[in-house]
Formats: sequence, C-alpha cells, structure tokens
Amino acid sequence: MSEKPHVSKKHPRAESIKIRERLTRNVETNVLALAGLIAHGRGEAFDYILGEETTPSAFKAITAAAATILLAERPVLSVNGNVAALCAEELVELSKATGAKLEVNLFHRLSGREEAIEGVLREAGADEVLGVGGSATARIDEVFSDRRRVDPRGIYAADVVFVPLEDGDRTEGLVRAGKRVVTVDLNPMSRTAQFASVTIVDNVVRALPLLVSEAERLKGSGRVELQGIVDEFDNREALSDAMTVMEKRLHTLAEKGIFIEPYDV
Amino acid sequence: MSEKPHVSKKHPRAESIKIRERLTRNVETNVLALAGLIAHGRGEAFDYILGEETTPSAFKAITAAAATILLAERPVLSVNGNVAALCAEELVELSKATGAKLEVNLFHRLSGREEAIEGVLREAGADEVLGVGGSATARIDEVFSDRRRVDPRGIYAADVVFVPLEDGDRTEGLVRAGKRVVTVDLNPMSRTAQFASVTIVDNVVRALPLLVSEAERLKGSGRVELQGIVDEFDNREALSDAMTVMEKRLHTLAEKGIFIEPYDV
Repeated sequence: MSEKPHVSKKHPRAESIKIRERLTRNVETNVLALAGLIAHGRGEAFDYILGEETTPSAFKAITAAAATILLAERPVLSVNGNVAALCAEELVELSKATGAKLEVNLFHRLSGREEAIEGVLREAGADEVLGVGGSATARIDEVFSDRRRVDPRGIYAADVVFVPLEDGDRTEGLVRAGKRVVTVDLNPMSRTAQFASVTIVDNVVRALPLLVSEAERLKGSGRVELQGIVDEFDNREALSDAMTVMEKRLHTLAEKGIFIEPYDV
Repeated sequence: MSEKPHVSKKHPRAESIKIRERLTRNVETNVLALAGLIAHGRGEAFDYILGEETTPSAFKAITAAAATILLAERPVLSVNGNVAALCAEELVELSKATGAKLEVNLFHRLSGREEAIEGVLREAGADEVLGVGGSATARIDEVFSDRRRVDPRGIYAADVVFVPLEDGDRTEGLVRAGKRVVTVDLNPMSRTAQFASVTIVDNVVRALPLLVSEAERLKGSGRVELQGIVDEFDNREALSDAMTVMEKRLHTLAEKGIFIEPYDV
C-alpha cells in the first residue's frame, strides 16, 4: 500500500500532509488502528481553528502538567498508537526526565499492535515498556473496552496518568478510579479534555518537546514550588481560554466569509 | 481486520462511532483510501463545533445547489471514496432527479479502487458510472494529481460539477477550468469551500437526502425561477454564516470552560 500524495514543499498544507503520511505508514506497521486516523483528522481540524500555534495558556498547562507528573509518586505515561507514531522519542525523554513508567494501553488490543508500539518505544530508547502481552493482568472496572486491562506495575497502581490523545471513556474511567489525569487534546470540548485535571490544548507534536523541557527545567525544584504551580493552575480557565482563541479566530474569518481566492494561491 | 468498538446505543457518541465503523469497513473493501479516514475526522470536528445540525443557511445553500445542478446543461456528480461509503443511494437518486451523470474521480487511483466504488454505486442502483478504468482518457490541465484524468463524456465536458468532500487542489483546478462547482464541506475555511460557487456547510449524511428532495421539488420549475434562486444565493454570506454559528457555539461553551463532568454522563 502506498499513499504518497507527492506533496511539494510549496503546498499550502505540506506540513499536515507529511504528518498524515507518517500516520498512514504506521497503520501499515500495525502501530495505528484505522480509528486512529479519524481521530487524527479531528485533531487537525481543531488545530487549524486554534491557529496551529502553542497558545500562552497551553504553555501554562504544559508547566502545570510537568509539575503534576514530577509531584506524582507513581506516574505513568500511557501510550497509544497515535502518540507512538508521532512522539515516541519525546515520550521516552519525558519518562527519563520524570521517572514515569511507559505503558502501552490500547482501545483495540489487536494481535501484534502492542508489540509494534513497544518496538517503536524501544527503538526510541525505552528500557522498560509495561502493558504488553501477558503483563496487562489487572483490571480497572471503571474503564470499559479492552483498555480496562492494565499493568499491575503501571496504570493500575498509578496516582497520575498522562494520557495524550485519549478517548473519553478511558479518561472518565481513570478519573472515576481516583487517578489524576494529564492529557494533550486539541478539542477543548472533548470528554477527555473536560474530565482531566490538566488539559494541554495543543498539537502533541508541538506540546511534547515543550513538556520535556519544562520537566527538565523543573525537576530540581522542591515539592512546595511544584505544588504551588499545580495549585495555581485552573483547568476550567485553560479550556475556556482555548475555546476563546478558537472563537476569535473564527470571528475574524467570519467577517470576511471568503478570504482565499483561487488565483491568489 | 475487525475494529468494532462494541458501541452501545447509550454511548454519547454512538452515531459518530457507527459512521466510523462504516468507513473503516470501506477501507477494507478498498472503496476508501486511508487519507479519507483522516479527512472524515476533520469533518467530524467541524460538525461538532457546528452543532451537528443543518443550519438555516446550509438549507439555503442546498436549495441553491439543487437549482444550479438543474440549470446545468451537462452536470456531473463527482464521486470519491468517502461519499460513496456514506451516501451512494442518495447520489444515485440525485443523478436520477437531475439527469446529472455519475463519475468516479479519485486522488489515489489505486488499482481496484475505481472498480470498488463503481460496484458500490451500481449496487445502489446506478445504470451508468463514468471515469472507471480506461474511460478516464481526458485531462484537465488545471488539476494536478491523478484527478486530472477525467472522462471525456463526464467532468471534461461538464459545465457544473458537484464535488462533495473534495480537496482544495481539485476544486481549484475545476474552477480555473471554468466550471461551476457545487460542494458539501463542513470546513467553511477550506479551499474547496472557499473556491466553490455553492458551498453546503453541512454533514454530507444530513445534506444529501435534503438535496435530493430539493432537486425533486424544484425539477418542474422554470429556468427563470431556478435562475432567481441561484442569483439570490451569496456564497460569501453562506460561509460567513457557518463561521458565525461555530463562533457563537464556541462562545457559549467558552463561558463555561468545563461543561461536562464525569459523574453526569
């Protein structure tokens, strides 16, 4: 299967198209489920409306996310196909900067997919990958679908779980199970964005390198300082701000109605 | 490959998930390209912001679209994998109501895909399907990619082309080639939405049945009446209105920030 759109660098959406190609290649290697492509498309649309930039309020959420993970006693980074395809190196770096464990956790536990994701993480430098094969023996009853199966050394025992690009059922289950959830989600209205304690409304490709550098910057800080950052952060405000940025951008565009013409491009 | 998310009717996104399942099944039968899944996700996001309803201004665009197709001398309905997967029956009905020809026209002309789409259209009742295999012998130089290959009896000679869920390059090429373009696109900022003469900003699953019934209602009307409907329609206003609906919805949600809680659902 080859789906190269022969994109030229001058194409107005070249960057998006390159990422799409990376994702479709990851479907071929079994890392990504087909539903993961649809989810990526949703993210693309929200990013477009957001303006394809990390907003100041997303940056605040990134700092709060780093502090939350650093303060955790048993933090876990939950990895699905989309995140593995886009940010494996950054996940490994974040794991090393914070001491959080990496756990593969999938909606669709198809044969070979966990192992494919584990392979991507190990290639990116991971020493330990939880949740693969027979190791996901514990169950979180609050989570429906295959994702209730978790690793007893990982998400099952975790106090903080980082679930970038996660679906709402899963996030809801983790919150119900009493865990603090940190996420990256471009849709501030999604159930994941709404349920999490810290929601970074940003493209994971932009947010994760920033999260790694914030974690590295803050890892020498004392617990009081880190707790201060967490206490100061208000997720309601962060979500509200993201929606306002999108609203303003739509407002500017709506005033024009038509703002690109065929002969301009 | 089986990707059934075991969705219950009570799931808050059950309808979306059912449509996703239909699309992934169509990837398996070769009707849909992987990139088509990503495009569907973008549509889902815009539909979510729009409120998942046909707006009054989208309904006006549907009426103008029906009038435009009925007024055309050589109208063609261009069919890609996404539209075939979601609305094959309605396309055939629209073709019968307006006399427009059906033509398969793909970005990714992979072996077997045209034939798979033709099969879906014939199963939905189509008598004639253009653009398949050796019949796409003409070229539209204004269109880049495989889609420049068109059927000399169809898009090549058409004055009006209906291109639901189309990409920007393609639409731009058709407009440059002097054709009137009618489209359905949930993103009012997309190049397709911006370039078309009539853009229906709505979910194709909601819009096509309405377009068929508008075409049936109007098909007995005289040319003067139809031309009046077309002249009265302003695509800039339609796009502006769609953006305003999205903007207002975001504004209402932004005031709350968090509007769903795990224990509510």
